[in-house]
Amino acid sequence: MLGLMQPWPLLCHKLIDHAALQHGEREVVSRSVEGPVVRTTYAAIRSRAKKVAQMLVREGFGRGDRLATMAWNTGRHIEVWYGINGMGAVYHTLNPRLFPDQIAWIMNHAEDKALFVDLTFLPVIEKIAPRVPSLKRIVVLADRAHMPETGLAHVACFEDWIAEADGDFDWVDVDENAASGMCYTSGTTGDPKGVVYSHRSNVLHAMIAALPDSMGLSSRDVILPVVPMFHANAWGLAQSAPMIGAKLVMPGGKLDGASVYEMLDSERVTFSAAVPTVWLMLLQHLEETGKALPYLRKVVIGGAACPRAVVQKFEANYDVEVIHAWGMTEMSPLGSLGSIKPSVEALEGDERLDVKQKQGHPPFGVEMKVTDDANVELPRDGKTFGRLKVRGPAVASAYFGGAGQEQFDAEGWFDTGDVAHIDAHGYMEITDRAKDVIKSGGEWISTIALENLAVAHPDVAEAAAIGVQHPKWGERPLLVIVAKPGRAPTKAEVLDFMQDKVAKWWMPDDVVFASEIPHTATGKIQKIALREIYKDFVFAA
Amino acid sequence: MLGLMQPWPLLCHKLIDHAALQHGEREVVSRSVEGPVVRTTYAAIRSRAKKVAQMLVREGFGRGDRLATMAWNTGRHIEVWYGINGMGAVYHTLNPRLFPDQIAWIMNHAEDKALFVDLTFLPVIEKIAPRVPSLKRIVVLADRAHMPETGLAHVACFEDWIAEADGDFDWVDVDENAASGMCYTSGTTGDPKGVVYSHRSNVLHAMIAALPDSMGLSSRDVILPVVPMFHANAWGLAQSAPMIGAKLVMPGGKLDGASVYEMLDSERVTFSAAVPTVWLMLLQHLEETGKALPYLRKVVIGGAACPRAVVQKFEANYDVEVIHAWGMTEMSPLGSLGSIKPSVEALEGDERLDVKQKQGHPPFGVEMKVTDDANVELPRDGKTFGRLKVRGPAVASAYFGGAGQEQFDAEGWFDTGDVAHIDAHGYMEITDRAKDVIKSGGEWISTIALENLAVAHPDVAEAAAIGVQHPKWGERPLLVIVAKPGRAPTKAEVLDFMQDKVAKWWMPDDVVFASEIPHTATGKIQKIALREIYKDFVFAA
Repeated sequence: MLGLMQPWPLLCHKLIDHAALQHGEREVVSRSVEGPVVRTTYAAIRSRAKKVAQMLVREGFGRGDRLATMAWNTGRHIEVWYGINGMGAVYHTLNPRLFPDQIAWIMNHAEDKALFVDLTFLPVIEKIAPRVPSLKRIVVLADRAHMPETGLAHVACFEDWIAEADGDFDWVDVDENAASGMCYTSGTTGDPKGVVYSHRSNVLHAMIAALPDSMGLSSRDVILPVVPMFHANAWGLAQSAPMIGAKLVMPGGKLDGASVYEMLDSERVTFSAAVPTVWLMLLQHLEETGKALPYLRKVVIGGAACPRAVVQKFEANYDVEVIHAWGMTEMSPLGSLGSIKPSVEALEGDERLDVKQKQGHPPFGVEMKVTDDANVELPRDGKTFGRLKVRGPAVASAYFGGAGQEQFDAEGWFDTGDVAHIDAHGYMEITDRAKDVIKSGGEWISTIALENLAVAHPDVAEAAAIGVQHPKWGERPLLVIVAKPGRAPTKAEVLDFMQDKVAKWWMPDDVVFASEIPHTATGKIQKIALREIYKDFVFAA
Repeated sequence: MLGLMQPWPLLCHKLIDHAALQHGEREVVSRSVEGPVVRTTYAAIRSRAKKVAQMLVREGFGRGDRLATMAWNTGRHIEVWYGINGMGAVYHTLNPRLFPDQIAWIMNHAEDKALFVDLTFLPVIEKIAPRVPSLKRIVVLADRAHMPETGLAHVACFEDWIAEADGDFDWVDVDENAASGMCYTSGTTGDPKGVVYSHRSNVLHAMIAALPDSMGLSSRDVILPVVPMFHANAWGLAQSAPMIGAKLVMPGGKLDGASVYEMLDSERVTFSAAVPTVWLMLLQHLEETGKALPYLRKVVIGGAACPRAVVQKFEANYDVEVIHAWGMTEMSPLGSLGSIKPSVEALEGDERLDVKQKQGHPPFGVEMKVTDDANVELPRDGKTFGRLKVRGPAVASAYFGGAGQEQFDAEGWFDTGDVAHIDAHGYMEITDRAKDVIKSGGEWISTIALENLAVAHPDVAEAAAIGVQHPKWGERPLLVIVAKPGRAPTKAEVLDFMQDKVAKWWMPDDVVFASEIPHTATGKIQKIALREIYKDFVFAA
């Protein structure tokens, strides 16, 4: 027996319809790529999105076509997303921080037919576009006055282009399970893999993200998504904000401390979201200038583990609530958020910070467990760690083209590739990446735990723990250390410092000192490169 | 091209799974029907719901079966709901306030196969059950010690009954569009009509209801649903609360001011929801006793238009935010909520109260419009009123058995039967029921507006406006008035008082005085009966 409720599909363009009708005059303010701060409204964004859709249809693009964007967070980027979704195509966000070869590979893999690009990235695209034969149209997100000379084929100037349309366009009907968006993960190994969001997953994610114990977003909020739309959907904010009618403040390409502060202050931002680096820059700017944050209520920090000092400074010095969050491109991206549950509400000081340091608890719509290598679920005791697996309506079921099938099991669980433990209150803490964890005599040693401990030594600037082959134990930990300038800690000093703070059998078998540790473009330690450097290392007998 | 996201169906029993895993120790406190306050947790509720499911399957009940409940808000009632949903059947809430004949008619129409019933209602059920041949099992929600003598067939005592099961039961897989719940509307005309909720509609409604600008529910909240689970799903609270992990305080059968206050105070309730009558009783109790509401943060008021004084007193005297809400059984039930939008945030005093008096604005997931009789949409100007129509994933598409098809149009809009206007900010205000509105010379006159105006006269206790046949205008307004005890207002006094406060052509053509006005069981004016009484009334020439 079926329910007798309306078959009202969850479609992304209904989000902008709702915003335009119920919050039509609510502002979307952008630092434009051309320079000045520009202001528009949800009503205007919808009407321009209709023109985008109309032009795309007129030029022969259709349902399911992948139409790429390489753009900062601006009102125009939002218009493009909703225009693409409203005519049934798929917005495909390109990360300009990747190498041009990777971008070209991704565009060809996705068979992108069109590209909307900010002025900033035009030089890169001029190199890439000739290598992407599927590309039939490149729209530069600028007005006529700012259009540069370019030798690119199929080029249009965005403002001129949409001026050709009258906006008299009905959104097409699409299935809620139709593809809505696409984003490639740039793994450290192998080719990038494409995640394909559906309308349904995006809308459900937007709802879940706005709930009080997730981000907690209201129409009275002023939201500044520093996290880029090309980085895992800006954590859903370009969808949650219109859904609830919040004012949006889009930072464009300027993400330094002073620029972010200027937008926070002049637009009276109440909520923001970014990776730790951005917050470190902002806090440094505040400390240098002595400025305060009178309007900011809450920040969400994710994308990398958040330094304890960042949480502490925001809450103690600026009265801003910090929510540590964790997610993945494959999860739309939110997986867990560190809002305070009643069971830990009474904690204070360091104990409270310990909870805030964890990656948080999953909201309804995200199932989460840790298992051993044999897929047996491990206890939720806050210490037994294992492979972190997730399931939910906004979690990927496969990658575009079928890559990475080994990450999905028959019961629908996605293996995140992270190693974590979950405590009795439901808070999850990442302890490692599965490919980095050290397997010693059948037991696992967390490299992140060793590194966090080592960098707490006053003479240590950076530390990396890796597994090195060992004849008896399979692998044993080797600690690689970069000393602070002018300091020269010894192996014995470092090991003494770590002694009794981790299990005895976790202690590194050796410590080596290096002048630097290799990093990825996004600042993460390149463990693969490090393991390559030390692949012939032999522990002293 | 489809998205590549997990086919994770939105199922009601996933709500209690999430609560048990993520908020397992969070309490559900009930004033039991037997008397004492009893305490349980989400983890315990889920494990007892599994026993309910196991017993139902063992006794031969299956998917799609309608299994009725006639019960107050208690933890047991929640166990029964989730147990029924988890084995694929449909919970069917019966309203004990209806006449026994109506209840029997409804049970036979739904073909209820089982019934879970509170002790309170056993005498009624003893009369009804023999007339419902489909009924194979009656479970009395009590323990052995409280089981009364009864001549009913197929009776079990709830606590003994579930003690037979070990709870080792896997929820069944059901389609998210499968029926989950059922509730009949008791129209003032014709037979009751069955609304059939799906798992999907209930879960989406629970999410929408918990959003910051709807009810705004967090795990740190303590929620007291005074509104009964048999009254439009307790406005979704039995689903929203486990979804977000809030503590639930269930009032059982005692809804008087002192009893509600006792639960609010002793359990430190932060959020509550009820019809205006309950709040009037509570406010009277507070005024008589001089007590305060230190924990209560917010109340939602719906089910009937909320007296202005109630909003004013809660906010000014007790620092409790009031959200006026509107909905219908057919809408799961929330349709609009009066949270403050940024566009009206600056209003103060009477202007702010004017906004709060309206029925609120629809959240994402509810589309709303007003049309004239020819289905042409009317302007959103805050004065042009017409038929209120709604659309959304938690809005009915039909009634059980196909009744009332004329209320659903080809584009999916449901005609609510209400007459309303919508202002430029999106706030909707009900001005009448469609069947009560007075049609004078092709124009509509709001009976609610006339009644609200008339009762503002110091000598008027109650007023009802009805349309009476008129040779020239079709209908003209007749005002029926009940004077306050010891007062005797005249027709001229009343009309003088109303003069210039409504359009001239809205003014009643005549005023009659009566000793009483007929009411329904739920306290609404019986306009049909009143029109019958005055059907031969002739206006003076």
